[in-house]
Amino acid sequence: MPTENDMKAALETYIDAFSTRDADKLVSLFAADATIEDPVGSKPVRGREAIDAFYREGVKVVTHMALSAPVRGSHTNAAAMAFDFEMDINGQRIRTSAIDVMEFDEDGKIRHMRAYWGPSDSRELD
Amino acid sequence: MPTENDMKAALETYIDAFSTRDADKLVSLFAADATIEDPVGSKPVRGREAIDAFYREGVKVVTHMALSAPVRGSHTNAAAMAFDFEMDINGQRIRTSAIDVMEFDEDGKIRHMRAYWGPSDSRELD
Repeated sequence: MPTENDMKAALETYIDAFSTRDADKLVSLFAADATIEDPVGSKPVRGREAIDAFYREGVKVVTHMALSAPVRGSHTNAAAMAFDFEMDINGQRIRTSAIDVMEFDEDGKIRHMRAYWGPSDSRELD
Repeated sequence: MPTENDMKAALETYIDAFSTRDADKLVSLFAADATIEDPVGSKPVRGREAIDAFYREGVKVVTHMALSAPVRGSHTNAAAMAFDFEMDINGQRIRTSAIDVMEFDEDGKIRHMRAYWGPSDSRELD
């Protein structure tokens, strides 16, 4: 089982990997059969191939990502973080506030990710 | 179904009710058969009577609670928030950083609450 520090480090790596646009690093954080529900309420992305495509597209459009507050752990195999990210969609900058909850497997890989953000959490920037 | 704004307002009410030590207000946010897992990894508190006892004790020991960043919504019946709270336990002040995820029922009441914080998220204050 990953320690609380292992899980927090993985979430910080997630943020850093967006800054360096490192899709391979992002994908390496996940178990092969992981699911990603981003945003919560959308159809989950499931499995290595789909996760790979998700982050390859993600690092293209996300131009900035930063924690809003320190990563939180738990008393079991989960950790969570509040952060903001900016995307460039056809020249329009969009800023979104999100909370990601990550559940880890015994090998310290993320097996479920859920991203809490809704329509009211995104806004267009000038 | 509650709107995104309804859910965000409920989470803000949750924070405010700790400030005014209003256990009745806190309990009123929850469905009668709700579960509370606080922290995630502990045995859930289940049902109105247990939830009532949980918040009656909670408002006694929590001396401060404030959002770390704006509440996040979702594309379904859930919202999440990062916040800090302080407790006074036998004269020792303890500050904890947490993320709460709330899932709502069709009537806009919270049916599941999960609080993400671990041992490394609490520290004793002078």
